[in-house]
Amino acid sequence: VTTDALAELELDLPTGRVASGDVVNPDDLHDESLHPTVQTPLAVVYPQNTEEVARTLAWATRHGIPVVPRGSGTGMSGGATPVATGIVLSLARMNTVLDINTRDHVAVVQPGVTLRDLEAALEGTGLYYPVYPGELSGSLGGNVNTNAGGMRAVRHGVTRAHILGLEAVQIDGTVFRTGGPVVKSSSGYDLTQLLIGSEGTLAVVTEITLRLSPRMPERTTVLVPFATLHEITEVVPTIVASGLQPSILEYIDILTMTGVTSRAGLDLGVAEDVAAKAMAYLVVVLETRTRAQLDGDIEALATLVDDAGALDVYVLEGSAGPKLIEAREGAFWVAKEAGAHDIIDVVVPRASVPGFLADVADMAQRHESFIAGCGHVGDGNVHLSVFQPDVERRTALLDELFAAGVALGGAVSGEHGIGRDKQRPFLMLSNPENLALQRAIKHVFDPQQLLNPHRLLDERPLP
Amino acid sequence: VTTDALAELELDLPTGRVASGDVVNPDDLHDESLHPTVQTPLAVVYPQNTEEVARTLAWATRHGIPVVPRGSGTGMSGGATPVATGIVLSLARMNTVLDINTRDHVAVVQPGVTLRDLEAALEGTGLYYPVYPGELSGSLGGNVNTNAGGMRAVRHGVTRAHILGLEAVQIDGTVFRTGGPVVKSSSGYDLTQLLIGSEGTLAVVTEITLRLSPRMPERTTVLVPFATLHEITEVVPTIVASGLQPSILEYIDILTMTGVTSRAGLDLGVAEDVAAKAMAYLVVVLETRTRAQLDGDIEALATLVDDAGALDVYVLEGSAGPKLIEAREGAFWVAKEAGAHDIIDVVVPRASVPGFLADVADMAQRHESFIAGCGHVGDGNVHLSVFQPDVERRTALLDELFAAGVALGGAVSGEHGIGRDKQRPFLMLSNPENLALQRAIKHVFDPQQLLNPHRLLDERPLP
Repeated sequence: VTTDALAELELDLPTGRVASGDVVNPDDLHDESLHPTVQTPLAVVYPQNTEEVARTLAWATRHGIPVVPRGSGTGMSGGATPVATGIVLSLARMNTVLDINTRDHVAVVQPGVTLRDLEAALEGTGLYYPVYPGELSGSLGGNVNTNAGGMRAVRHGVTRAHILGLEAVQIDGTVFRTGGPVVKSSSGYDLTQLLIGSEGTLAVVTEITLRLSPRMPERTTVLVPFATLHEITEVVPTIVASGLQPSILEYIDILTMTGVTSRAGLDLGVAEDVAAKAMAYLVVVLETRTRAQLDGDIEALATLVDDAGALDVYVLEGSAGPKLIEAREGAFWVAKEAGAHDIIDVVVPRASVPGFLADVADMAQRHESFIAGCGHVGDGNVHLSVFQPDVERRTALLDELFAAGVALGGAVSGEHGIGRDKQRPFLMLSNPENLALQRAIKHVFDPQQLLNPHRLLDERPLP
Repeated sequence: VTTDALAELELDLPTGRVASGDVVNPDDLHDESLHPTVQTPLAVVYPQNTEEVARTLAWATRHGIPVVPRGSGTGMSGGATPVATGIVLSLARMNTVLDINTRDHVAVVQPGVTLRDLEAALEGTGLYYPVYPGELSGSLGGNVNTNAGGMRAVRHGVTRAHILGLEAVQIDGTVFRTGGPVVKSSSGYDLTQLLIGSEGTLAVVTEITLRLSPRMPERTTVLVPFATLHEITEVVPTIVASGLQPSILEYIDILTMTGVTSRAGLDLGVAEDVAAKAMAYLVVVLETRTRAQLDGDIEALATLVDDAGALDVYVLEGSAGPKLIEAREGAFWVAKEAGAHDIIDVVVPRASVPGFLADVADMAQRHESFIAGCGHVGDGNVHLSVFQPDVERRTALLDELFAAGVALGGAVSGEHGIGRDKQRPFLMLSNPENLALQRAIKHVFDPQQLLNPHRLLDERPLP
């Protein structure tokens, strides 16, 4: 039956859209999760426009075949990996920047457009898309579906704050539009917001209208070593309250710092005696309209961190700042290469970070595990690399850790999404009445549970 | 049957919660819409906590009785007016500020807390809630349900950008929580965002967790007269692109300006020869961390508007600035007192405002009507007062006007909401596939259509 069905789809689409068997590109079959599930899909389908997406989904509904939508596969939670009973719907070929409106500060893109493509298209306009999850090969479609965050969210907010409208296709092939190129609206339920962060389980996004921001001309990176991580997490709320509005406000612990700088071959010029005492670093990027304002802001920041016990303050000149930010983005790869067994991104209220990280250190010790980290500390969003090879012990540690984060009012994932990897704590720790509503909404969009099955709300085991 | 049902509810709640007949306060029976529908409800119910809301809704479900949730009644679209077959559920007595966390920049409030209450509670903290719809007696619950906007949205965004979590009650009495005191999350469908702007048709909000912002210490208001409205709307995108980040960016046409200043008894010191030529005013509020930055920003703004043909630039000293902003907020009352027949708040892409307002002027002339206005021009959100006593002609004019706004990619309402007043254009101009999804979501939450009936998606005529 399935071979017949595939043949029908091939007939229904232009040539070259359906790859199966040996022709499938292995790059299309995984994401960056540390817990890969290796399944071979029936086929990978590469639609080139909305109409082809609609035909594919209508076909899937007719035959009851699961569909896993996929951007560029840079996700970290098993949110877009193949299932053996279904197809992968790759949006990679829908990669056209459809419009850039420099007066309205609006761009319209197809979902396969990557952050790098968009950045290139905006060159010279004075505008940029401020969401910076740190992987420029990530697609906008993927960003929308995970509600991607990243380092600049502390000032600019996450993906949710920058998406104005969408075109999407329901599993039965119905195309619908939400929002539009306007920055506000009070005209009915906001389905744009409902689709953002829905991890491809409600509809397939085929067009994205996003808001651009004017780029501030002046920018500097300030690196501040501290003798304890606790001092950093304690000073963060004060910096947020200061009105300095840093565009980046990160912490990097000493192990992660050593890892990322050595991987990038980066020497930041930190004096030896300071480096010897530093257990953690605060990284602050300031962006302003004028040089005079930048100088004033640097001074104000220096005073603030001095009062908080900073070992020194380094204003990184020239390319050192951007290089540090780039190196910091390698933290995931450093952890992966170092053999981390899990990477998590719990978010807690900002001022709870010091207590939370102290608790995490206790838990790690108690479970004879090791945890290193860095993170968007201005947002209360910490990235922790967990080293504990034994699955049972690791699960016990993680259960405890997630429960502690949620008990503080936090969430299981600040930006990576739930996918398959975080289903257990997500389903265990969510408000059951809220979950019931989510399931009912899922049923509205996808009554057969065909769209991106076996993740997020869908507990059915993999086939 | 209804009398019995009411008696049952009275028994189920503490004394003094249910008012009916002569005891009903007439203030609880209207909003500020120009098109009042006068219906007497079965009763007005005043719950004092979530449990009482839940009991009331469970009771309504058992008896099939419609429920109209109500904040402080400052809405402008007939979104919270009584229906004869149902009860009004007033949240006015749930008016406690439950928590203010100055380290996390988070407040937790009950829905009946007004913007004025919240402002008072934040006194001395250095923090504020930046959404400023202009009516301080408006409740936070109402703000959430209409996704209120206002003058400061150009920098800070609308209500949607500041709500972190909710507690709400479904029509069957089920209590659920969404979000929490964290600024980001990628953990399931965002029901917080779904409820924001849903106009009380999905659930009754009983607790709101909102994000506070540090208040910038320096602030000034700049008033810029222009010889034409067109010059103002043309310069706005340039100001938005400048990086000056005004917290307010408004236009006021000459008629509205005369109305609001004379109503407030305000003399802004505009020279007579300038006033004689000015057809419209641009109002810009700048807020900064330091005085030096403010001075630099004022200079940059002055250069910018000079280049765009400003007749003069007035930096309003002392209390003149705040007084002008307050007077501007009276625009609605000026229009109402002047006998406006409708007030609308279409939103269009920012750079389309000049063309849209030119088209609107044409339409007004063609339909022998008169239109004056002001608005959040930085957001493309214009408030127009329509003078045309004849219903048929007015409807024809408005149909044309809304269609023109939506054709530009805009929406029927930027911030007032749909309620009863804007149902016709909203339902006529919305994407039908999107409307079908909204209806299905409504069905998930409220299958009997008891919650805030006869508005937004619900076309059934009033009983």
